[in-house]
Amino acid sequence: MNDAHPSPRATVKRLPQRAAYDRATINAILDEGLICHVGFVVDGQPFVIPTIHVRIGDSVYVHGSPASRMLQALASGGTVCITVTLLDGLVLARSAFHHSMNYRSVVLFGSASAVEAPERKLEVLRALSEHVIPGRWDEVRQPSAEELRRTLVVCVPIDEASAKIRSGPPLDDDEDYELSVWAGVLPLQLTAGMPLGDPRLRPGIEPPPYTRNYRRANRVQGS
Amino acid sequence: MNDAHPSPRATVKRLPQRAAYDRATINAILDEGLICHVGFVVDGQPFVIPTIHVRIGDSVYVHGSPASRMLQALASGGTVCITVTLLDGLVLARSAFHHSMNYRSVVLFGSASAVEAPERKLEVLRALSEHVIPGRWDEVRQPSAEELRRTLVVCVPIDEASAKIRSGPPLDDDEDYELSVWAGVLPLQLTAGMPLGDPRLRPGIEPPPYTRNYRRANRVQGS
Repeated sequence: MNDAHPSPRATVKRLPQRAAYDRATINAILDEGLICHVGFVVDGQPFVIPTIHVRIGDSVYVHGSPASRMLQALASGGTVCITVTLLDGLVLARSAFHHSMNYRSVVLFGSASAVEAPERKLEVLRALSEHVIPGRWDEVRQPSAEELRRTLVVCVPIDEASAKIRSGPPLDDDEDYELSVWAGVLPLQLTAGMPLGDPRLRPGIEPPPYTRNYRRANRVQGS
Repeated sequence: MNDAHPSPRATVKRLPQRAAYDRATINAILDEGLICHVGFVVDGQPFVIPTIHVRIGDSVYVHGSPASRMLQALASGGTVCITVTLLDGLVLARSAFHHSMNYRSVVLFGSASAVEAPERKLEVLRALSEHVIPGRWDEVRQPSAEELRRTLVVCVPIDEASAKIRSGPPLDDDEDYELSVWAGVLPLQLTAGMPLGDPRLRPGIEPPPYTRNYRRANRVQGS
């Protein structure tokens, strides 16, 4: 992944001061995001589908049923765009015009291909699970050979990527700072509630520790 | 918007029991979502860009700088895909294979065009503001004629749309219900923290009521 000289497609055009192309910034956003939005083209028609992803090194992986339109399109090649967006807050300015959001997003491009080797598929599925909820994988029934066959895993090498970040207070026009209007940021965060046990849960099984105080922040993995 | 007979592109292929095509379901998801992901194609390359949207009747509107690559591509025609995704929880099954997420998403298709009339642009910007944080618009400095000129507003009529929803507990294979593994749902929600005043806020201005107990749920607007 070339982080020094992004091509035009991966160059942030608007508000370039919000852009970042370094690996650490990009990886942190990819790793914190619980889902991505995958863009692909079929017969000239764009599709955008949400799905779980995981980054391993310089690639992003998605998975699902072999019958999935998205995975079929990806596995058959062609360039894919994957976007991960984290909302951090509403930016309330004194003028309507300068309202904004605080966010961190990554847009990446790559050519997808199916992962064929069952042992590699298993590694990716484990990484997907750890990405979503660390500690879970080791406690549950592992995939059978048949379940692995019924799971299509697709690899998207990160050929190019850019991050775009806005943070901090609103930026108003000079004269508007005199207005008697409250201005600031309303922070937003994806938060977890109390774990809800399955109605068919066997008695005496308590929610595991990783379901308590579940947080997405600070998820950076080893690169 | 035809909600009875979706075409192949708008028909949910995988797990059709999770699909919905009725207007009320689709509108509720579009109205609760704070942002959408816009998919478009430039020279065969798909792009997926996050942005704020608002639904008004049978159309979705997005806005931004006239220099935006996304808005330029949209305003020049061509079919667009807009996706709104709400994450409701992690679904923790007894087997790795049956792990899932609870979510509500809408995928819609339409041909975009720029909104030209300044008075209509103003109406849409007001609706965008009310979509994000009701009550704010009336308190802030309104857009000047110059600011309106510097804002491109794009309309995407909802030609076709589908919703996909998963809710409820995990669904495990029959024999796995005997396992001594906790199973259930970890609910997720986008929540707001305490409002953070701008460091340059004039003294004595308190955060307005609409910044307290901010919630995205139950945002259905009149259609």
